[in-house]
Amino acid sequence: MTPDEFRRHGRQAIDWIADYLERIEQFPVLSQVKPGEIRAKLPPKPPVEGEPFEAILRDLDDIVLPGITHWQSPNFFAFFPANNSGPSILGDLVCAGLGVQGMLWATSPACTEVETHVLDWMADLLGLPAQFKSDATGGGVIQDTASSATLCAIVAARERATSGRSNQSGVRSPLVAYASTQAHSSVEKGVRVAGLGSENLRFIDVDDRYAMRPDRLADAIAQDRAAGRIPAIVCATVGTTSSTAIDPVPEIGRICREQGIWLHVDAALAGTAAICPEFRHLHAGLELADSYCVNPHKWMFTNFDCDCFYVADRAPLIRALSVLPEYLRNRASESGAVIDYRDWHVPLGRRFRALKLWFVIRWFGVAGLQQKIRQHVAWAQEFAGWVAADPRFELAASVPLNLVCFRLREGDEANQRLLDRLNGSGQVYLSHTRLDGKFTLRFCVGQTNTTRGHVVRAWEQIRAG
Amino acid sequence: MTPDEFRRHGRQAIDWIADYLERIEQFPVLSQVKPGEIRAKLPPKPPVEGEPFEAILRDLDDIVLPGITHWQSPNFFAFFPANNSGPSILGDLVCAGLGVQGMLWATSPACTEVETHVLDWMADLLGLPAQFKSDATGGGVIQDTASSATLCAIVAARERATSGRSNQSGVRSPLVAYASTQAHSSVEKGVRVAGLGSENLRFIDVDDRYAMRPDRLADAIAQDRAAGRIPAIVCATVGTTSSTAIDPVPEIGRICREQGIWLHVDAALAGTAAICPEFRHLHAGLELADSYCVNPHKWMFTNFDCDCFYVADRAPLIRALSVLPEYLRNRASESGAVIDYRDWHVPLGRRFRALKLWFVIRWFGVAGLQQKIRQHVAWAQEFAGWVAADPRFELAASVPLNLVCFRLREGDEANQRLLDRLNGSGQVYLSHTRLDGKFTLRFCVGQTNTTRGHVVRAWEQIRAG
Repeated sequence: MTPDEFRRHGRQAIDWIADYLERIEQFPVLSQVKPGEIRAKLPPKPPVEGEPFEAILRDLDDIVLPGITHWQSPNFFAFFPANNSGPSILGDLVCAGLGVQGMLWATSPACTEVETHVLDWMADLLGLPAQFKSDATGGGVIQDTASSATLCAIVAARERATSGRSNQSGVRSPLVAYASTQAHSSVEKGVRVAGLGSENLRFIDVDDRYAMRPDRLADAIAQDRAAGRIPAIVCATVGTTSSTAIDPVPEIGRICREQGIWLHVDAALAGTAAICPEFRHLHAGLELADSYCVNPHKWMFTNFDCDCFYVADRAPLIRALSVLPEYLRNRASESGAVIDYRDWHVPLGRRFRALKLWFVIRWFGVAGLQQKIRQHVAWAQEFAGWVAADPRFELAASVPLNLVCFRLREGDEANQRLLDRLNGSGQVYLSHTRLDGKFTLRFCVGQTNTTRGHVVRAWEQIRAG
Repeated sequence: MTPDEFRRHGRQAIDWIADYLERIEQFPVLSQVKPGEIRAKLPPKPPVEGEPFEAILRDLDDIVLPGITHWQSPNFFAFFPANNSGPSILGDLVCAGLGVQGMLWATSPACTEVETHVLDWMADLLGLPAQFKSDATGGGVIQDTASSATLCAIVAARERATSGRSNQSGVRSPLVAYASTQAHSSVEKGVRVAGLGSENLRFIDVDDRYAMRPDRLADAIAQDRAAGRIPAIVCATVGTTSSTAIDPVPEIGRICREQGIWLHVDAALAGTAAICPEFRHLHAGLELADSYCVNPHKWMFTNFDCDCFYVADRAPLIRALSVLPEYLRNRASESGAVIDYRDWHVPLGRRFRALKLWFVIRWFGVAGLQQKIRQHVAWAQEFAGWVAADPRFELAASVPLNLVCFRLREGDEANQRLLDRLNGSGQVYLSHTRLDGKFTLRFCVGQTNTTRGHVVRAWEQIRAG
């Protein structure tokens, strides 16, 4: 494709996306296709000769769109959002166009330095403690997801807990990880991948707000120590997936400090709220954490994938992950004056993902980001008020931010039926969880283009059953 | 950003990329900035109010471009390529615009089904054995990089070698991995992350073509068994990073089968060549492999990140990585009729990366891809001939594909000086390795827009010293 062809087809692709976003509310939010329906429309063999770009674009409409669940629909209230925005899409486009691979500082200094800089901006925006910034002992890096960040935290914690022995000789003694019963499934996945084993993950009880009980954590640690096991890491959650519960990081952090245990704080969704001073209390106690992550690809209008992972001390992370073959040696790395982010995560290669985050922060400005976050929280609170006022429904958990957990009082079957009706209608998309064993609907207000009107209409549909 | 603003700014971004690609040869291929130079141009704090898109675009020229090492320059001959192409950029753009998150089939069936289908296409294109296709016991998935694919292979092998015990109880006994001395650094990184420990990675000697010696592999396995250790995985390489050496997969595979050891084959760069029937011999013995990966983001004109990872049996991979919390349960998954790719890699969330690969295969067609690969190989062979004919130079390794390893006969210092001169000139970018302890230049022909003229001029500059 020549540059001139790229100009022409690029405009077609841009227009296609703009048209898509304009008509997005015409599609069922949750794709209604049956398994295999999309594949059946694809030819069994790839074409021998190239096809015109117009044929490819046409298949987006004919084949792809029916199989899309529209995460960018303002009627998407399921899971946590994975939203995008114009500046983010265009930042990602420039990333693809430049096509740099920033495994080393030298292989594109701007890829590394813009990332370091924007992650320092983020640390200030979110009120993170000074040690997480690049001019201190720590620093931030963009990873794909919080799952990968959690894995890296576990590996660095393992390295520190065994003074490097597990990296050299393998995991040999029982290293224990702790998280609440409400923690994300990625903690167990990471514990497994890192060779600790699921049996060495303790699920700590929660209080009536679904937040980790520090007393139970302390008990579990004491039991493991008494049995000769090595407590290695606590994964606290600020904003759990089920109900945005906030673990008490200050108390958990004090225990971790006393015990010399790595504290990782997963604020994948909720961390973004700390852009607003009135929500910065979410980050209380973070000065006691060894690592932290937040996903701008969830609630900060930056398209997937973009997880910001911070460490208070970069040394154990780099020691755990750095392997330096001859073919990557270069004068800049040897000078010690640069960051080579390849040592901060599992992949060697890396995209210029900082561009999209940089574009988003500059396009919206801090005030623009704050306004959107405040609106989402306010509408979720308003929605929670409607639920509370309707005698058929009950709130299933407190609503600290933008997620409302609620249910019909009638019981699990009625709630499953309600969810099936709503999602089958194509008008809205909600997801579910279980709280205290009860089937519970989750209504998360966080899509970039959701307005109060969308929230109002969603509630009308929920009540209409 | 409204859809209309997106149309306008989208065109600006498309034009900026097209202009960039037109003038790319005006920039020094290797960025010439000093550490900190890019950051010094960035404001210490993010803007409170949003900025116009034009200001952001302007900074791409003023701040970012001087810090770019131009991977898309046709004069880029370093490392292995990470090339892009028009259809790939636009496929990635549509991915960002749709903004779907395909963790589950239900969260965008097209994201899963197009991926499965295109990975089956790839299996046919590359002549992979039938067990790697989705209608058999295995299947393919897109991961970010070969490093992550290797980690997943190690984790699945660990699961199989211990009948699931390491996943449950952690790594407790010495599990051993094997790779040649020339294998990629990601094997050691993966061995560490998975908790096996660097000491349990055996670097097997190579022959005079830098390919793994099967007799030495068999010896090492026998020694480990005798010592009570558990051989778990062999990572063979088809196209090593230093010199594109081809490990003898048929012989290695027979040993692995006899011994019940997982065989992973890393063909990150070289696998793409198998699109051409005359190079399909690269894949001899793959029917004995348990897993395999190739990176279209290297030599297949598909922008980073896009690694195709295949397993012959998906069961141990999924058993190792699947954790199912309530909030991800859904009727489609429970039907058993769909693939949920979240269980095929470490991250939970996932982009619609299959789009760019689908766009590339359709735009070029099989014949178009073959033509480009054949040209690159032919020009590299021609370059190798010029080196061989010049008495000042010597070839440092055989040239099976598109990478020429060569050096001045004068010794390491002269070669380091030559490399510094070339890369400092900004006219070309080469990287280096060590072979038999000697500093060796690597010249890889694989960038999308490289022509024979670029190769000719590069040789003129190399000779001119």
